Amino acid sequence: MKNIKILTERIIAFRDARDWKQFHNPKDVALSLVLEAGEVMEHFQWKSKEEMDKYVIEHKEEIGDELADVLYWVLLMSNDLKIDVLKALEKKLKKNEDKYPVEKAKGKHTKYNKL
Amino acid sequence: MKNIKILTERIIAFRDARDWKQFHNPKDVALSLVLEAGEVMEHFQWKSKEEMDKYVIEHKEEIGDELADVLYWVLLMSNDLKIDVLKALEKKLKKNEDKYPVEKAKGKHTKYNKL
Amino acid sequence: MKNIKILTERIIAFRDARDWKQFHNPKDVALSLVLEAGEVMEHFQWKSKEEMDKYVIEHKEEIGDELADVLYWVLLMSNDLKIDVLKALEKKLKKNEDKYPVEKAKGKHTKYNKL
Amino acid sequence: MKNIKILTERIIAFRDARDWKQFHNPKDVALSLVLEAGEVMEHFQWKSKEEMDKYVIEHKEEIGDELADVLYWVLLMSNDLKIDVLKALEKKLKKNEDKYPVEKAKGKHTKYNKL
Repeated sequence: MKNIKILTERIIAFRDARDWKQFHNPKDVALSLVLEAGEVMEHFQWKSKEEMDKYVIEHKEEIGDELADVLYWVLLMSNDLKIDVLKALEKKLKKNEDKYPVEKAKGKHTKYNKL
Repeated sequence: MKNIKILTERIIAFRDARDWKQFHNPKDVALSLVLEAGEVMEHFQWKSKEEMDKYVIEHKEEIGDELADVLYWVLLMSNDLKIDVLKALEKKLKKNEDKYPVEKAKGKHTKYNKL
Repeated sequence: MKNIKILTERIIAFRDARDWKQFHNPKDVALSLVLEAGEVMEHFQWKSKEEMDKYVIEHKEEIGDELADVLYWVLLMSNDLKIDVLKALEKKLKKNEDKYPVEKAKGKHTKYNKL
Repeated sequence: MKNIKILTERIIAFRDARDWKQFHNPKDVALSLVLEAGEVMEHFQWKSKEEMDKYVIEHKEEIGDELADVLYWVLLMSNDLKIDVLKALEKKLKKNEDKYPVEKAKGKHTKYNKL
């Protein structure tokens, strides 16, 4: 498994070879994040639970492609803003444990502030 | 640095302890992806280049939090659909090299199909 | 029923009284459109068909509020770009008739290019 | 100018002729709203202020098309949930006057809760 650090370096090398840093202000990069997340979502639109189950098996590669696009922009933005996103995720996971205690949250899709 | 595999395992353990798998169909998970990407984007709205430069330094932690949320859902969905997202990203990087050859793409923000 | 023209005029008068035109470049306005559409969508996340049926009756006003926010930005952007959005919609409706002929599209959620 | 009521009726007649009501649960319709709003936004990505000024004049029709798509789903959802979206917008405009008093909000892009 290639790790995040190496993949980030490749993303940045790819970008810098094309002299694209000039376009990568956080606002426009965040637009990419949203638009690529939208492309993931589009795969599932109008589909029933049963249709989705079938679809995700048959279109695993395409969906993986779109998820990779989202990850691409997460890593690029994290790099540019000097954010250690894995550390941020770890911290988040700890916070979530507190926001959603098992005994309160079990089996419910209620937002923490309404639990 | 915690790696992606360990973080994914923690995300899934957190989810399963709360019996939330039942809600995590790909459509609703993709909604989270889009909504969290939107929260990243919201940080930069209405801001000029100069305001953003200042803002990203002062709000590094909050932005990191939101990027971590996006990554969270990328990893959860990849896990559920049995997608190796790092491998997908690596493949993507190779594809992008072909779609955007340096000599054609250098210094331009043109989509590959219009280069 | 108040009409679109009058509502647009009120939106612009509200904006101009606050000297906000300076912020309303199309990119940032489009961000609002996406973020407000996201707020509509958030209402339905994680909900089953049955939960949604109940929810939309009990939260009609909140959902109406969010839809109004989306409409707000549609009208503001149309005004600023001198687009007659009702005319554009009418044209769209005609185009859709061709893209989705009844005999081909009936009962199917297939995109026109795959029909 | 065709009015909203007539356009809504045409949207619904178009839909019902294709027997598509079965797919139009609020969640999937809201996805359309977000995805179409994303298509508006995509027009402006990576562009500087100057590029946008030029672009909006040359691509008025395409942008109008996308805005019409957003409006389409606003009207369809409003119809299905029995929401009078023009009335909701009018109410919103009144609320905004209170949230953003001229003397406090003039010339600032600060959210009402931080004014």
